[in-house]
Amino acid sequence: MWIETKTEVEKASRTRASFSRRVLNGLLLCSGDMEHLDKYMKDKSFVLQLVVCGLRAVTRVILANNPLSGGLILAALYWASPWQGLLGTLGVLASTLTAVITGQDSAEVAGGLHGFNGMLVSLLMGEFSSAGDWYWWLLLPVFLGSATCVFLFSGLSSFLDRWDLPAAVFPFNIIIILYLLCTGPEHPYFPHHSVKPPGALEPNATELIALQVIRGIPLGVGQIFACGDLGPSLLILGAVFLYSPLLAVHALLGSAVGTLTGLSMAVRHESLYSGLSGFNGALGCMTVGGLFFTFSLWTHLFAIASAFFSAYADIALSNLMGTVGLPASSWAATLVATLMLLLTGSLAAYRIPIGQVRAPERNLRSRSQWEAGNTEERESTDV
Amino acid sequence: MWIETKTEVEKASRTRASFSRRVLNGLLLCSGDMEHLDKYMKDKSFVLQLVVCGLRAVTRVILANNPLSGGLILAALYWASPWQGLLGTLGVLASTLTAVITGQDSAEVAGGLHGFNGMLVSLLMGEFSSAGDWYWWLLLPVFLGSATCVFLFSGLSSFLDRWDLPAAVFPFNIIIILYLLCTGPEHPYFPHHSVKPPGALEPNATELIALQVIRGIPLGVGQIFACGDLGPSLLILGAVFLYSPLLAVHALLGSAVGTLTGLSMAVRHESLYSGLSGFNGALGCMTVGGLFFTFSLWTHLFAIASAFFSAYADIALSNLMGTVGLPASSWAATLVATLMLLLTGSLAAYRIPIGQVRAPERNLRSRSQWEAGNTEERESTDV
Amino acid sequence: MWIETKTEVEKASRTRASFSRRVLNGLLLCSGDMEHLDKYMKDKSFVLQLVVCGLRAVTRVILANNPLSGGLILAALYWASPWQGLLGTLGVLASTLTAVITGQDSAEVAGGLHGFNGMLVSLLMGEFSSAGDWYWWLLLPVFLGSATCVFLFSGLSSFLDRWDLPAAVFPFNIIIILYLLCTGPEHPYFPHHSVKPPGALEPNATELIALQVIRGIPLGVGQIFACGDLGPSLLILGAVFLYSPLLAVHALLGSAVGTLTGLSMAVRHESLYSGLSGFNGALGCMTVGGLFFTFSLWTHLFAIASAFFSAYADIALSNLMGTVGLPASSWAATLVATLMLLLTGSLAAYRIPIGQVRAPERNLRSRSQWEAGNTEERESTDV
Repeated sequence: MWIETKTEVEKASRTRASFSRRVLNGLLLCSGDMEHLDKYMKDKSFVLQLVVCGLRAVTRVILANNPLSGGLILAALYWASPWQGLLGTLGVLASTLTAVITGQDSAEVAGGLHGFNGMLVSLLMGEFSSAGDWYWWLLLPVFLGSATCVFLFSGLSSFLDRWDLPAAVFPFNIIIILYLLCTGPEHPYFPHHSVKPPGALEPNATELIALQVIRGIPLGVGQIFACGDLGPSLLILGAVFLYSPLLAVHALLGSAVGTLTGLSMAVRHESLYSGLSGFNGALGCMTVGGLFFTFSLWTHLFAIASAFFSAYADIALSNLMGTVGLPASSWAATLVATLMLLLTGSLAAYRIPIGQVRAPERNLRSRSQWEAGNTEERESTDV
Repeated sequence: MWIETKTEVEKASRTRASFSRRVLNGLLLCSGDMEHLDKYMKDKSFVLQLVVCGLRAVTRVILANNPLSGGLILAALYWASPWQGLLGTLGVLASTLTAVITGQDSAEVAGGLHGFNGMLVSLLMGEFSSAGDWYWWLLLPVFLGSATCVFLFSGLSSFLDRWDLPAAVFPFNIIIILYLLCTGPEHPYFPHHSVKPPGALEPNATELIALQVIRGIPLGVGQIFACGDLGPSLLILGAVFLYSPLLAVHALLGSAVGTLTGLSMAVRHESLYSGLSGFNGALGCMTVGGLFFTFSLWTHLFAIASAFFSAYADIALSNLMGTVGLPASSWAATLVATLMLLLTGSLAAYRIPIGQVRAPERNLRSRSQWEAGNTEERESTDV
Repeated sequence: MWIETKTEVEKASRTRASFSRRVLNGLLLCSGDMEHLDKYMKDKSFVLQLVVCGLRAVTRVILANNPLSGGLILAALYWASPWQGLLGTLGVLASTLTAVITGQDSAEVAGGLHGFNGMLVSLLMGEFSSAGDWYWWLLLPVFLGSATCVFLFSGLSSFLDRWDLPAAVFPFNIIIILYLLCTGPEHPYFPHHSVKPPGALEPNATELIALQVIRGIPLGVGQIFACGDLGPSLLILGAVFLYSPLLAVHALLGSAVGTLTGLSMAVRHESLYSGLSGFNGALGCMTVGGLFFTFSLWTHLFAIASAFFSAYADIALSNLMGTVGLPASSWAATLVATLMLLLTGSLAAYRIPIGQVRAPERNLRSRSQWEAGNTEERESTDV
């Protein structure tokens, strides 16, 4: 991509193209996986490399991989709550540094694969804490929990590698459950809110407000980062759009499907309004619609099915785990996405090997190249 | 088998054999896996093929694979409750058609492998629903749940394939738990009965009636289809007998073992009377005794052990899941059967590869052929 | 080792070495895995072989493998409670004999691999029983449970073999949970104590007594065998020291880490005093520190991390399972140890293949030989 776009830039300057074209080229350079940045970063200082891989890790949470999007998302988090922003930053750094120290594969670390689980753990620890913002003792579990994610990510990757499956956010889901189980709502050091299951009965339920429900759809995208404010959520959606418009569309679509699912199962209004009904659907939809599968009408339909399944499974798991006061976080979407990657039949034909996954727009192109490569290889061995 | 029996039929007509012999031959043609039917069905219409593979799917629930048995079982279900019969039929069709649409392996679809989980989900949704019969809204979850089974079956098969393990009824067990968790006993649209664990204390317990307990043994076979009436249960047992007498014997034996287990653990009388104590034992016993292992005295003893283990595990899981009002359905038998298939030692020597599993009577024969084939191959490669 | 030590003994007699040297040599013969015993045992009677492999099984519980240590541990158990000692002995025998009957690999049986899960099941059944000592009916579940462990061990080994992972004490953890779920605190035949989660609030909590907490550290080693007395616990620690001083040090260290973890999470005082906070830490620490990984400063640090993770996970799981009155037994340590064995990165370089695991001191030596062997083989194939 680097070479292509460079020649494009050169052509543009030679032909004295208009300003708007230059802006577009700049945007194209900033969108997608920005792999050209990796070559540029190679001889830079460790701190700068850490910043870039940290920003990549921030976007990995929402299945993107772009440092600029990462900056935007981080800005959104600081906008919503500076304390949450700080926790998220510390989480990314703690887990990325742990990965460096424990000798994880450096390409994986540079790609931000060892940071996003730590970030999620930190954000959710802050979100569930009932000790209020700026409760500095919380940094202890934040550091420990983020660091432990690296162990889980590495171990689970070895395990799932047999089926070419990613460890995804399983480490985050495991660690946050263990943390909440360790502490409990009345804990003397780290108290946290108890979670109300979405299926809990509301004694004095009011009418459902349609506008609030629709507002919940973009909030569902923000809830992937445990962010419940509209402005920051839209900024996060914008950051995803910068990485890949297709992914952003699927995020919104999945969140809408999740909200619809919530309505069909008559969940608590609070669940719908806050976007909590939508975020598992969004994640389930994004995974299938373009990221791990080449985009096509067929994958698009499967993405919608995946969103529905994720959202229903989330209601079920939330009700189950709610009986002991635990949240289902993104267990449902992670499990359903893993299932989708295992599927045989017509969807499997569109499956992209984990190592070759790029932005949906690139996947489309790289797949054709990769298939062409495969055919060539086959031909060469035939000869 | 086709060729053999045809020549037998020819011989019979040539020697002007008695009428009884012809009946026996007819019965032989109708028993077992009826693989000769597949060749006959190849150029028939899609609807007819769908009917046959649907009927095969019906028998797959009880580990058989015979369209005629399927017809008998379906008749038994309609006899017990027309509404349940209708739900079961729709479940088979919904999941089989989903498998066709999502491009699953056509041999698997024709063998009924993609229908039986859907059928079980539908039957159990109907059984647990507290909205009464002919509540047409129930068809929505029935369709959705049955269709989702195909996804789970396909994904789990990919996963378990590494150990040559079948996905079995894991999809059904997962989906029914998710459905019950989604809805709950007080749900406005889809209310369901809460399940009482078998170990729950009975405040005013009466004497145990021996005859009722013995009646529970054949009911245990019917409970595999969530059917609690004696007549239909006996008809189902007869359908299994038509497929394979050996399997039917193990079904009854396993159910008896399950009932014995229930007595030894002092479960609620209701559990024993209804056959719910027996059906996991029956499934556990059938899996090992002849189906996935060549029949022998050794496998017979392991089948009894498997029945005991399934039944005890079922009581344990029922007590656990009963704390949140969920049934353990056939988790215990499925897990124990999977364990048995993984076993090393003397049982492993009798293991039949998943792809070569037929009716127990055929397994005995095919195994010797298959081993002979193996030896021949080995000899040919030696040369 | 046999040949080496024999020549050492010869040398010692030739040079008329002092008495103390002979004692040291005798101790060296008795420490470690005592593989020389296996050759000596080959032509002995079945009963004697059973005794030796039973004693090996006893030590397998605490990750050691030495018949003399096994004798010491058994003595400690009989000292603490003759009834518990008897149950443990029966458990080892029942599961070892089941392994022989079901045709498990004879080398595995001789190594005691099929006995230690049965022993743990028996000990814990006795510990949790609220029917008092010498309740002879308990022998029924003890026999059945121990025998079933063989099935689980064999099946799980087949499953985990793909990642070169051991089945460890997963069978015990599964069976004890199933047993406790089957029976329940008010069971007419097999009542058992309900378990209080470590995070349960104490209404009238007293001051924490430091000495009691420190006393809990060696008790944590004894709790691996469900033994809560100081004397027997120290004898068990001594038995581990006989097998491998390094392992004993890690056992104490892990137990201390577990106790520290308990303090940091403000668990119930009873948990700290009884050593229940420590034993998962001890197991987690022993697994990594020298047993499955060659000892080094790096593995030592990972062993401490593993102890912390095991202990925190144990608090979390105990709180979760305590909501339904179940103990978390050693689930945490077993899961964390499995995760550690899957880890990639710098720790993986020290990993010893499961089949080559010996006493930590031997691992250090055998690893260098084994690596040298590998290099030789590679060279020979190069030529």
